Amino acid sequence: MTQRAELDRLRVVLVATRNPLNLGAAARAMSNFGVLHLRVVNPFELAFREARSAVGLASDVLAGAEEFHNLADALSDCGLVIGTTAIQHRGWQHPLRSLEEGAVVIRRQLSSTPVAIVFGSEKTGLSNDDLSHCHWLMHIPTREEHLSMNLGQAVAITLYEIARGQKQLATFALPPPAPAAELERITMVLLEALDTSGYATPATHAITEEKVRRMVLRMGLNARDAEVLLGMLRQILWKLRSP
Amino acid sequence: MTQRAELDRLRVVLVATRNPLNLGAAARAMSNFGVLHLRVVNPFELAFREARSAVGLASDVLAGAEEFHNLADALSDCGLVIGTTAIQHRGWQHPLRSLEEGAVVIRRQLSSTPVAIVFGSEKTGLSNDDLSHCHWLMHIPTREEHLSMNLGQAVAITLYEIARGQKQLATFALPPPAPAAELERITMVLLEALDTSGYATPATHAITEEKVRRMVLRMGLNARDAEVLLGMLRQILWKLRSP
Repeated sequence: MTQRAELDRLRVVLVATRNPLNLGAAARAMSNFGVLHLRVVNPFELAFREARSAVGLASDVLAGAEEFHNLADALSDCGLVIGTTAIQHRGWQHPLRSLEEGAVVIRRQLSSTPVAIVFGSEKTGLSNDDLSHCHWLMHIPTREEHLSMNLGQAVAITLYEIARGQKQLATFALPPPAPAAELERITMVLLEALDTSGYATPATHAITEEKVRRMVLRMGLNARDAEVLLGMLRQILWKLRSP
Repeated sequence: MTQRAELDRLRVVLVATRNPLNLGAAARAMSNFGVLHLRVVNPFELAFREARSAVGLASDVLAGAEEFHNLADALSDCGLVIGTTAIQHRGWQHPLRSLEEGAVVIRRQLSSTPVAIVFGSEKTGLSNDDLSHCHWLMHIPTREEHLSMNLGQAVAITLYEIARGQKQLATFALPPPAPAAELERITMVLLEALDTSGYATPATHAITEEKVRRMVLRMGLNARDAEVLLGMLRQILWKLRSP
């Protein structure tokens, strides 16, 4: 389980981002998952200014974003640096891990050191020079025909996977199941309605009874639903019998 | 990495989407993960036209998107319908699963039936009426201070999780669940019987309809049981109406 103190050691580094909407989307996903340290390296000035001026829940992340003019400075305190890529380049010396595999390593490292995840620009990704700062590379498995993801979505998925299991999930108390006696009452009232309406005949009554009982069991009714259903069927039966 | 035939049974249903960028982003993520069936219900006309006119790798998904005027029609062939929500509402009878838990169930069901995942509008999410069509609800765990995700990012994360590691999946031979259209027929016939018998009055008809629909969904009927139950209810209704 990733703890808040650990996520506080995670840095998202966006290199040469061009589109303010992507900067905003990345910041929003960071805010959603509690990853609050954004570093931008040589963003398109206008994009950065536009994204910052946007008012919204992610604005804290953007307001606190640190700007750097080269990647090395943005990574100076990080003990582990992971580059992201959509495609497999030849000639790279870097190990390439899937996000799922990579996240395991990242969570482990976050207990002791700041970790940076670096995303390149929308058009060109990370340059060879950028990649030379990375310990290894990570990719999100997508289908062959369409490998390249939107930057904001890639950041969101990456943080989702790393933050996974961070919170104790709220467990929802399901309503208790109906007791067997209540199910039997439903079976009996429905059976009477079927007899009265002519669905079951004296010849098929016994087999219909069995069929109804099994079906009612398979419904897996909770106590509240069983009570409601019984009330409905009783009213219907009453009407069937009234002249 | 994925069983293509299974992902081919997945439908992404977007209800009343307002922003063309979100439609485009959802379509792009779908294309990335090989989920190609997009259904839109009452999208803002302009948004839908703008998103469709955008040229890009996701354009096949958008071009093939089916448009519906009500949610029930968009779900008619689906044996499992999951609503998405950012928040925990009180008073819902729906089980709420995390994406991680929900994806396990979804992958299993995809081996035998079309499954729909329904996303509401950016502003308001899914309405109570929309929710009454859902078997259960699913949420992406985010931090308390910022629960609500961007629509395109929520779609991307959801599909990432569902498409993940489908190959390791053990398939269980479950009886196929009843399609949503069949459950809707059961709801309608039962509702008519309740109206006819005086259980529902004109004043309570609407709330009873919602109550019945949710209860029928919770029954988790398989296709065969649904057929039998529908036959029973039709006979009862016929008798209620005959002089």
